[in-house]
Amino acid sequence: MIFPATSLDLSGERFSVAYRIAAAGLEEAMARAWGICLEQTVEVPDELLADDDIRAHVVGRIESLDEVGPDRFAARISYAVETSAFELTQFLNVVFGNTAMQPGIRVLHLDLPASLRQHFPGPRFGQEGIRALVGVWDRPLLCTALKPVGLGARDLAALAYQIALGGFDLIKEDHGFSDQPFAPFTERVAACAEAIDRANGATGRRCLYVPNIAAPADRVRARAFEAKRLGAGGVMAAPGLVGWDALRQLAADDGFALPILSHPAWLGTYAIHPDQGVAHHVIFGQLPRLAGADATIFVNYGGRFAYSQEDCRGIVSGAQGEMGGLRPIFPVPSGGMTLDRLPDMAHFYGREAVFLIAGGLYARGPDLLESAREFRRVVERLG
Amino acid sequence: MIFPATSLDLSGERFSVAYRIAAAGLEEAMARAWGICLEQTVEVPDELLADDDIRAHVVGRIESLDEVGPDRFAARISYAVETSAFELTQFLNVVFGNTAMQPGIRVLHLDLPASLRQHFPGPRFGQEGIRALVGVWDRPLLCTALKPVGLGARDLAALAYQIALGGFDLIKEDHGFSDQPFAPFTERVAACAEAIDRANGATGRRCLYVPNIAAPADRVRARAFEAKRLGAGGVMAAPGLVGWDALRQLAADDGFALPILSHPAWLGTYAIHPDQGVAHHVIFGQLPRLAGADATIFVNYGGRFAYSQEDCRGIVSGAQGEMGGLRPIFPVPSGGMTLDRLPDMAHFYGREAVFLIAGGLYARGPDLLESAREFRRVVERLG
Repeated sequence: MIFPATSLDLSGERFSVAYRIAAAGLEEAMARAWGICLEQTVEVPDELLADDDIRAHVVGRIESLDEVGPDRFAARISYAVETSAFELTQFLNVVFGNTAMQPGIRVLHLDLPASLRQHFPGPRFGQEGIRALVGVWDRPLLCTALKPVGLGARDLAALAYQIALGGFDLIKEDHGFSDQPFAPFTERVAACAEAIDRANGATGRRCLYVPNIAAPADRVRARAFEAKRLGAGGVMAAPGLVGWDALRQLAADDGFALPILSHPAWLGTYAIHPDQGVAHHVIFGQLPRLAGADATIFVNYGGRFAYSQEDCRGIVSGAQGEMGGLRPIFPVPSGGMTLDRLPDMAHFYGREAVFLIAGGLYARGPDLLESAREFRRVVERLG
Repeated sequence: MIFPATSLDLSGERFSVAYRIAAAGLEEAMARAWGICLEQTVEVPDELLADDDIRAHVVGRIESLDEVGPDRFAARISYAVETSAFELTQFLNVVFGNTAMQPGIRVLHLDLPASLRQHFPGPRFGQEGIRALVGVWDRPLLCTALKPVGLGARDLAALAYQIALGGFDLIKEDHGFSDQPFAPFTERVAACAEAIDRANGATGRRCLYVPNIAAPADRVRARAFEAKRLGAGGVMAAPGLVGWDALRQLAADDGFALPILSHPAWLGTYAIHPDQGVAHHVIFGQLPRLAGADATIFVNYGGRFAYSQEDCRGIVSGAQGEMGGLRPIFPVPSGGMTLDRLPDMAHFYGREAVFLIAGGLYARGPDLLESAREFRRVVERLG
């Protein structure tokens, strides 16, 4: 059968997705690209479509196809903005929903027109907003993570106090903290927020406390607001765990209005194989930014994860490169970093970064306050 | 510094995760397994831990490590149930949060003790519950997908009517339907539910209408309840898009109480590379079931996706194998299936499956009603 011919009232605006496609030659690449156009939209063979607006405008459109290496092609495919229903969940679905099950296809880049940016305004704070909150303009920011899961609220607060006193700009929680009996959310956040506030009173600085709000679907928002009420200066969430749209919803909430840090947990698989999934640039750069994160945590090259400089450069460009007017957000390289590496990192990332040092801080020496001060002294010379 | 020594009041119950680890020999495998134990829990080098309950019980524990092939090892690692905070999001985080960023590590299997099943009771209906709703006990079930995105509500309803009249047991929507202007959610669901209800009146059968409720984070639940109010017999959602816990929340809601179909969109990357990510068995079998789905849609071997029989067997065992008392759920193989393949599929999957045929139904011939009847006749012989 042929589906009923349909007339549609479309704006003509389209977003586009760049895919890298593995294929033995141009003909196969073209066939695979065309397969994406159908799979991501109508999900039927095109011979079942009438000669109508669905065929002409709803089906994805190959805007370009270029050979980029041996048996590797880059296709730019555009989709009518209306296919996204202007919902982030459905937007992601059009970008890569079923095609994620096809081997040898990787999402490289997203390009969004104004009509989508209107619905996905992105970060509320971005780099400038976070700088204004901490009052630091002339150097990279310094962040650490409260650890380990298992410690009680009072002990965590004592650590937080030392670190804030020592001069860190942000103190986030490990992404493994949720609402464990060891340190229940409310008790922990209250204790740590109070400790950091006390340290701020002593230093005259504004260190931000950033608890992790990963939670069951119906409690993410409540936990974020509870954190705010208890004195948190921002929140962290892993979109791979709570869902991308939970970040967007929170970022868009005028009653919330705190910075959001995106954490990469559960998302690593997307980027890990160079021929499939979603490129670092998108999964840790463009998507967190589109979802409204103000900073994106990822693993640095040369640490205990196998990310390359190129991977990290891709994330930085997704986080702060031109993206149709969305505010640039902070790249937050992390993972296995030490004091010695800071100058190299400053050289690589420049001033517009947040350096997340956790294990390296705790392992630095027996005196946590003195270790924190050492990091602060070094980062101040990196302005 | 050494973190403060901590005493914990733990139940002693642990869940375990089987990982496949790529390593050049047993020593490297052991080091990598130990790396997982730390990374997924305390996220600090163990020399920073006191000789306390955190070290003894919070850090993951290697229960076994076996060579399973050349440079491939299987490790079973257990974690204290308390690390999960009895929240599905944090449970997933412990299973694979940061380790997803490590190459050559794949989640193979989950093993849950009773205390976790108490918090994650899984499917409300399962296979038996869905069979009771459609009133079919002696053969595989037949399902199709309403397509394509772009069609108006009235045309979709007309298709649904023919298919229900022809004898399909379930009619789900394509996962690309959300709330596009072409066929807004409420209008579409009302029209299709009414059409299928009318067909049921004519046949005396109970075909279920299953709309897609993927939506922004704050509207998933509302859309599910709206679907129910409008006469839907179940709902479909892609946990990769709406978040795993959104399914759990809905499945646990006594006021909702309709079957839930899980869709694989946006999750394909997890399974696609045999050395990393999350095995088919887990991502499309155990996890949807744990999250409360009553049926799990995945792509069949031999279709337009490159899944093997082994991949599909893994999903089936995750969906209906022993899993500590959770109800077995329906495997729903899908993707590029035709009438000719049904007997082979019945041979492979047995009776306890839902066969999802969409393109193959629409492409079968000019008369949709007659095509639907043909499928029904064939499936009735597969009892």
